[in-house]
This record gives sequence, structure tokens and C-alpha cells, in this order.
Amino acid sequence: MQTLTEAQMTRLVESVLRAAGLSQAEAAACAAASVFADLRGAATHGLVYIVPRTLESIAAGKTVSGARPTLRKETGAAALMKAAGVPGPVAGREAMLLAVRKAKEQGIGAVNMFNGNPIGLLGYYANLAASEKMIGIVMANTAPAAAPHGATSAVLGTNPFAYAAPSRDSHPVLFDAATTVASAGKLMQVRRQGVPVPAGWLTDAAGNPVTDAAHAKGAVMLPCGGHKGSALAILIHLLTGGLSGTSVGGEETHDNPDPARRGQGALFLAIDPELFGGSAVFETMVERQIGFIHAARPLPGKDHALYPGERGWAELDARRQRGIPVPDEDWKLVVEAVAAAKLPADLVASASAPA
Amino acid sequence: MQTLTEAQMTRLVESVLRAAGLSQAEAAACAAASVFADLRGAATHGLVYIVPRTLESIAAGKTVSGARPTLRKETGAAALMKAAGVPGPVAGREAMLLAVRKAKEQGIGAVNMFNGNPIGLLGYYANLAASEKMIGIVMANTAPAAAPHGATSAVLGTNPFAYAAPSRDSHPVLFDAATTVASAGKLMQVRRQGVPVPAGWLTDAAGNPVTDAAHAKGAVMLPCGGHKGSALAILIHLLTGGLSGTSVGGEETHDNPDPARRGQGALFLAIDPELFGGSAVFETMVERQIGFIHAARPLPGKDHALYPGERGWAELDARRQRGIPVPDEDWKLVVEAVAAAKLPADLVASASAPA
Repeated sequence: MQTLTEAQMTRLVESVLRAAGLSQAEAAACAAASVFADLRGAATHGLVYIVPRTLESIAAGKTVSGARPTLRKETGAAALMKAAGVPGPVAGREAMLLAVRKAKEQGIGAVNMFNGNPIGLLGYYANLAASEKMIGIVMANTAPAAAPHGATSAVLGTNPFAYAAPSRDSHPVLFDAATTVASAGKLMQVRRQGVPVPAGWLTDAAGNPVTDAAHAKGAVMLPCGGHKGSALAILIHLLTGGLSGTSVGGEETHDNPDPARRGQGALFLAIDPELFGGSAVFETMVERQIGFIHAARPLPGKDHALYPGERGWAELDARRQRGIPVPDEDWKLVVEAVAAAKLPADLVASASAPA
Repeated sequence: MQTLTEAQMTRLVESVLRAAGLSQAEAAACAAASVFADLRGAATHGLVYIVPRTLESIAAGKTVSGARPTLRKETGAAALMKAAGVPGPVAGREAMLLAVRKAKEQGIGAVNMFNGNPIGLLGYYANLAASEKMIGIVMANTAPAAAPHGATSAVLGTNPFAYAAPSRDSHPVLFDAATTVASAGKLMQVRRQGVPVPAGWLTDAAGNPVTDAAHAKGAVMLPCGGHKGSALAILIHLLTGGLSGTSVGGEETHDNPDPARRGQGALFLAIDPELFGGSAVFETMVERQIGFIHAARPLPGKDHALYPGERGWAELDARRQRGIPVPDEDWKLVVEAVAAAKLPADLVASASAPA
């Protein structure tokens, strides 16, 4: 088990991606999104995700250094952004910051991104808005993996959804989850570990739960909360690929054979409370909401109920002090990805050495 | 069992509310929302809801004929609307149509309503946007009824959420649901019927399921999908009462002792696909989404999976032909409400007579 400081982790991601051809600014944007995930304990979207995925994407010609997002349509409050070739976190960050600028003028800003590379942890972008004293909402489509309510074949994506809201004294409220019962990352983890898949995650063709990880391949994921999660995943398909005219649930995203329709779709919303009841009032309201959650009668044996994101912020505070642990199997995946990209092996070793 | 045509039902609601002092336009707005609910089989927000609730609200001085919504803040894309005294459906309709006008210019429009009277079925307002070729999203706060994830006391509202999206050939996709496992209306229905409460709807103080309707009073509702529904309900509190500075989850809405903070909060969003990938393209994408859902492998014994709202539209088509059935107990509630308001009893009888 390696343990890296935030600075070491940042340098590791940056130096690998720079060696693979990205500019310093591009590599830094990727590292910021990745390290935020690792600091919060969301390893499925951290180092072990960003390095292999970005190297593969560069090798496949899908991520191209210097590619820039282009606006196909724009109003004072909205934009349609084509992000073909742009490193995912670069496009995601620019999309959210554009939504924030629009919200500052208009109260709300909406940017629909299409033809995108994977942007990673959605909560990172939602939190960018919260850092600007705004509510941020992000949603993204993914390839068919889950059954719509009443069916047993894969049509809907795991379609993640995130939001963040700034609070007066506390870390922002920050929620980030798949609209399926389990995320794709958690399902992969269970498969790697070979433990039983919890009932309710997967269905077979007859609608029966699948709990055997070895047979999970032919099984299909289930939306969270039955018809409600199914409807939310459909809304996300419509607000992402639907709104840009690229894809809906049932169609490929990153593997779409048509380059005009290929890639991730995402919607970035920013709302500026200053143009509603006022920013200071809003941050007090969020603090009050956190207070009511903390004051609720907890489940037996629990200290108090947590607000969305609270556990991740505690992890972030702790990891900033004590470093970010990287399990050996994750380290191995990163080393292998660097080797597969024919980059110098000492990039990984030296980045993790003391500064 | 009475069966009323759409026209009879409309006349019934209009004539009762006109007799209670609303103008023809106000009564018509209430009737339109109510009849839409009854046509779709959502009786909990139809006649038996709108007539008693509105008469009580008028008697309590909370609904005042002639009261008009006022805009406290406004930008090209957003507005903060105070709706004190305004009949709920009048305010809801104006808020959504304002969001639609803003979306036509800006791509997106957001109207936050506060101090409102109950607006009834949220899907009605979302569908107003779909009728204008837009995506409509509506959410509203309610009084504490549900436990946040990890707790067992009431903090969150049932906080309903609705969306609608226009389709090329089919009825719009139209979703409308509480963020709790069961809605308040369904829970009241089960209590009236005295049948067991399904496990998962309610929790006791120790976190155990409550299934005995007789003991359900001390029990607390559960959010749909565990921490995910809990986080969605929190987002709705923040985007409604939080954004206007009136209330968050844990605080009263309609019974708030402070008149400045009293009432329902709601957010109305409209998104015009014409300013993204184009309206005609979007309606084709929605049609394609419906096609993928219909083509999915259905659960054994089912013909095909339904898209959100499909069952309600089939009911609406059927009820437009065959009339709207009103169970005797519902009819009795309406007759009693009219009597309690000291209105002529023959209002109900004559409105249900053949035209």
C-alpha cells in the first residue's frame, strides 16, 4: 500500500499525462478532478480511473491535446457545447464555469455538452459552482446498462447525477450518485473481489435477482427506487444526449459508430441564489438544513444522521492530513497503464517519492 | 358511483369555486388542474382534493380572490415570485408560463414561487411546458413527514417532483411522484382502507418497518431509494424554500406561524430544445427513447414496459370517452365540503346532471 500526499498525487497524474502529450493546463485540469475524487474516498473516479482511461483515450485518438470546446448555440443563459477530442475534465470544467458566468447574469445557466470524453466524478464540477456561491447540478448519460422499470434488458445508462450547494459554516452539501441501485464502479469492485452481488443490484432475463458475481455478466442493472429511478434516468438521457440530438437510452455513447453522435453527453446547471432570495440568506438556509438533519433522531447506534457529502468531506480533511492510500492492486493498474502507453516507468515511481 | 364527463367535472369545480367567491378565470384555472388529475386517474389531486382544500383555504383567508402573484426579482431567465393569497393553480400556471416565455428567449427559464397555496398535481404544470414544445420540470416542498437517511424523525417533506417532455408522435413523457417511497395521498388511502401498510413505507423510532395502519400515526415516512431519495428531497428543499429564503426541511410550510415564511415553495423550470439541438430533433429523440423502452424485453407476463406517464395517458384517453368515475366516498367528501362552506347543496347535484 502506497500513501501519497495531495501534492504527490497531483504531480503523479500531471507528469504521466504531460508525458502522454497533454499540455500542463490540460494535465492540471485532469489531476484536479482526479485528486478531488481520491481525497473524498471515491477511488473509482480517482487515479486508477483517470490515468488508464485518459492514456487509452489518447492512444485511441479520442482525446487530443489542444482540442477546444466549441459553442454551437448560445444565449445569455444557455449554451450547446461540442467537446469532441477535449480531455474530459477540461471540457467539464469549462462547461460548469460557463454555466456559472451565465448564472451570475441571469440567475440560472445551463450548458449542454456533447461528443465529450468521460468527465469523471460529477460532484467535482457541481462543487466548482458551490465554490462560486452557487448551486451546481450535473448529470451525464452512459451506455446501456440498466433495465427500464418493467423490463429486463439494458436500455438506460447508470446516468449519474450530482449537486452541490454552499453553506455558511460547513462544507457544501454535495451529492453524487448513479441512478442505478449500484454504480458501475461498485459493481466492478464486487466482481473483482468475487463476493456475492447484493440482491437488488442485478436482474436476470426473468426478473429474478442475480447475486452470483460469476454469472453477473449476462445480468442487467436495476434502477434505484423502481419506476422513480427509471424515470430519473430517462430524464437524464433526455436532458443530455436528447437535448443535443446525439443519443438516448438504448444507444451507445463512447462506442457509438457515428462520430457525430459519439461520446458522453452532460448537462451543467448553475443557479445563483443572489438573484433569488440572496446569497447570504441562502447559505444560512443550507446551514439550517444541515442543522435539522443533524438534530434528527438517529438510527439506533448512530451518533447523528449525515448530510449528503459529509462523509466525503471528513475523508478529504483526514486525507489532506494523513495522505491518500493507494491499494496495491490500484497501483499495479496505474503502472501497467503507463507501461502499455510506452511511457517511462520511473514516472510513477519518482512522482510518489518525497518532494 | 357517479360518472361525470370532462365537461361536467369542469363545470362542477368551476361553479363551486365561483360560488365560494373566486372569479371565473380563477375557478377555471383550478378546474383545469383538477380535471387533468382526475382524467389521468390521479384522484388524490382531483375533485376530492381541489374542492375541499380550496374551500377551506378561502374560509381561512389563505386564498383570496383577486390576489395576484408579484415578482420580487427578475432577470431574462429567472424570477422570484411571491404568491401569497393567490389560488394555487393560478400561481402555478402563471409561474410555469413565465418560465416558458423566458426559456423561449434564453433556452432555460426558472421561476421560484414562495408563500404559495397548494398547487395540486405538479405534472399538470410540467405538461403545460410540454404543450409549448418544451421540457418542463416542477418540484415543491411540503411539511416535515419523512426521515432523512440515517434518522427516524420527520425532517423532509414528501417533496414531489415532476417532469414532462414532448414527443413527435406520442403523448409526452410525463413523470410525477413523491420523493418518499409512498406519497402522502397513497398513505392516507391505505389508512382509510385499514389495510396493512406495505413494508418500507414507514419506520418507527428504532428504524423498524411499521405495517399496522392503526399505529401508523406515530410512524415516519421513508425516502425512496435510501440515501438517494433523501438527497433528492434535500435538493428540492434547497431549490424551493431555500432559494427564496422561506423554509428548509424541518420547518412548517402551510402552517408556518410566520406569514412571511408561510406556504408552499416550488420551482418551475422550462427548457426550450430549439435553443439546443432543435425542437424537431428533440421530439424525434423522445420518440426514439419511447421506442427503446417499448422494445425492451418485458418482465414475464407483461406486454411491454411503459414509459413514464403512459398509463395515465391511456386512462385520460379512456376517460374522455367513457367519463370520470367518482367513488361514493369521494362524492360524499365533496358534498360535505360544500355544505361546510355554507354553499347551496344543489351546486353539486346540478353540475353533475346532463348538460
